[in-house]
Amino acid sequence: MARLDPYVPGEQPQISGLIKLNTNENPYPPSPLITNALSSESLEALRLYPDPNSKALKSAIADTFALKQEQVFVGNGSDEVLAIAFQAFFEQEKPLLFPDITYSFYPVYCNLYDIDVSTIPLRDDFTIAVDDYNRENGGIIFPNPNAPTGIGLPLANIEALLNNNTETVVVVDEAYIDFGGQTAASLVDQYPNLLVVQTLSKSRSLAGLRVGFALGQKELIEGLDRVKNSFNSYPVDRVAEVAAVSAINDVEYFQQCCDKIIASRVWVTQELLQLDFEVLPSQANFVMAKPTTVSAESLFNQLRERNILVRYFDKPRIGDYCRISVGTEQEMQALIAAIKEIIQ
Amino acid sequence: MARLDPYVPGEQPQISGLIKLNTNENPYPPSPLITNALSSESLEALRLYPDPNSKALKSAIADTFALKQEQVFVGNGSDEVLAIAFQAFFEQEKPLLFPDITYSFYPVYCNLYDIDVSTIPLRDDFTIAVDDYNRENGGIIFPNPNAPTGIGLPLANIEALLNNNTETVVVVDEAYIDFGGQTAASLVDQYPNLLVVQTLSKSRSLAGLRVGFALGQKELIEGLDRVKNSFNSYPVDRVAEVAAVSAINDVEYFQQCCDKIIASRVWVTQELLQLDFEVLPSQANFVMAKPTTVSAESLFNQLRERNILVRYFDKPRIGDYCRISVGTEQEMQALIAAIKEIIQ
Repeated sequence: MARLDPYVPGEQPQISGLIKLNTNENPYPPSPLITNALSSESLEALRLYPDPNSKALKSAIADTFALKQEQVFVGNGSDEVLAIAFQAFFEQEKPLLFPDITYSFYPVYCNLYDIDVSTIPLRDDFTIAVDDYNRENGGIIFPNPNAPTGIGLPLANIEALLNNNTETVVVVDEAYIDFGGQTAASLVDQYPNLLVVQTLSKSRSLAGLRVGFALGQKELIEGLDRVKNSFNSYPVDRVAEVAAVSAINDVEYFQQCCDKIIASRVWVTQELLQLDFEVLPSQANFVMAKPTTVSAESLFNQLRERNILVRYFDKPRIGDYCRISVGTEQEMQALIAAIKEIIQ
Repeated sequence: MARLDPYVPGEQPQISGLIKLNTNENPYPPSPLITNALSSESLEALRLYPDPNSKALKSAIADTFALKQEQVFVGNGSDEVLAIAFQAFFEQEKPLLFPDITYSFYPVYCNLYDIDVSTIPLRDDFTIAVDDYNRENGGIIFPNPNAPTGIGLPLANIEALLNNNTETVVVVDEAYIDFGGQTAASLVDQYPNLLVVQTLSKSRSLAGLRVGFALGQKELIEGLDRVKNSFNSYPVDRVAEVAAVSAINDVEYFQQCCDKIIASRVWVTQELLQLDFEVLPSQANFVMAKPTTVSAESLFNQLRERNILVRYFDKPRIGDYCRISVGTEQEMQALIAAIKEIIQ
């Protein structure tokens, strides 16, 4: 196992007053309904195992997407759901396809499960060219919107890809879908090889609680369940299940938070453009922004000195950009003020 | 993945008034200190990712066993910890060794990771014969006390095994150790190939929260961390970490609960012996008991009709036994009363 090259998550420093814009967490707290739900889940009940099938949670998710409970899989964050999907579907003779610039956990899973990969370059404008995926493969995965670009793929393009690719599993990783993208959940009933993965970490402010899910036809979900039940019977604990159900059912609060984040993203994008940044068009809760008068690395470091933490990837094609999570209005104002100081 | 043969956990039926003695849950609630700990972990904090290294929890565990933090690994229940250990250490050319009668998740992990197995028969009295493990292997694992027999292995026997077997990893799975066994944690500093796995599900009444851990020398723990960080950065959520720390620190309550369960086990064992059952000598929170006037399967079914759920395994060597979790005093009295009705 010495060959493994683990995923490195964004830092979680314990610095008071830090404006933390590095791991795409939601700046707003989760639904207040969770408090009541948690107290109703008594201390006493924690002595008992959770429901290994998480039926209450699957039912809430199925209702949200007008799907059946048997079309829902749940896990310990979408990272675990993705890992299980890689193991269940992508251990194939032919290579898995994903974009050259994408979620950096994908190559880590491939390393863990010994899965061969062909990366498909994004276009020069960082958009996904779905026609380039029209080739022999053992599976396809991409985030929509893509990370760390934030660029969304229209549903019509995903359908075009699915119509061309009917023999292997296509995973659409929708961690950031609720900030302006179009979910492929509506395509699940038509395409037996489509798996849509989402998380409660971003749009439902529950990164700390580890709940993710997948939507797909019954046979795909059964494939995931076979792996999960060969690995860990109860990945979603009692508290996580109760809180997740409350958060999913509080549709109004969820929509308010998403709307505020979208408004802040629009505002910060405009401000950055006025400061001569190049900003990729984002449908996520972050923006990829390229400063033109300082290097991205220098901007990252100078923001850090001012107690503002963003993310910098020292990687090909994106090394000129900083990824900035969309925080509260006040955090975005502080960010812009700091950038003005740095670049003037 | 169709080849997988998943683990089947004990039933979790929702029947009111059921006396549930089938999944070795603790009959007492977790430490009351958890309530305060949970409210101090504010709702607001759930929007943020947990600490991927679970330092607070590792520190509490390290202190408990007089080990260093770098000698502790934590995961989503000991089932996940075990799965990761199988993947990290047991994918070897030579077969993994474990008892013919043991925790039924072991062969499931082997199936998942394509690990070759040789099972070593328990002696006729169901004890582990450590000399029989003195043969070529890719690793060794056994529970202590063993499940579902409940029989403990003295520390001297474990040391004898470790002295004979120095080249492959030996996992001692101590899910039930706190009910009367001797932990091998004290051997960690001497044996670089020893990994001790424990859980908070049993003796700390937290089956619903999913926290398990492993103790071993730094190199073994790093091996586990490489797999974990290639799979899921944050398997222990914020609530689980805070509650687990509180439960571990409440040593007095923990000891009281263990003492009560041991006392109830002694009582129920005596009662069963007086009713002509054969009872294996248990150091766990359950007893394996063989009725002599009805079959075990019939006893299981007749107890179920009386709203008392125990576990029956339709398997070689143990098909004549019922496994009965040790509940409260009152639950044990109700069990004995029901058995008297059935067998008289």
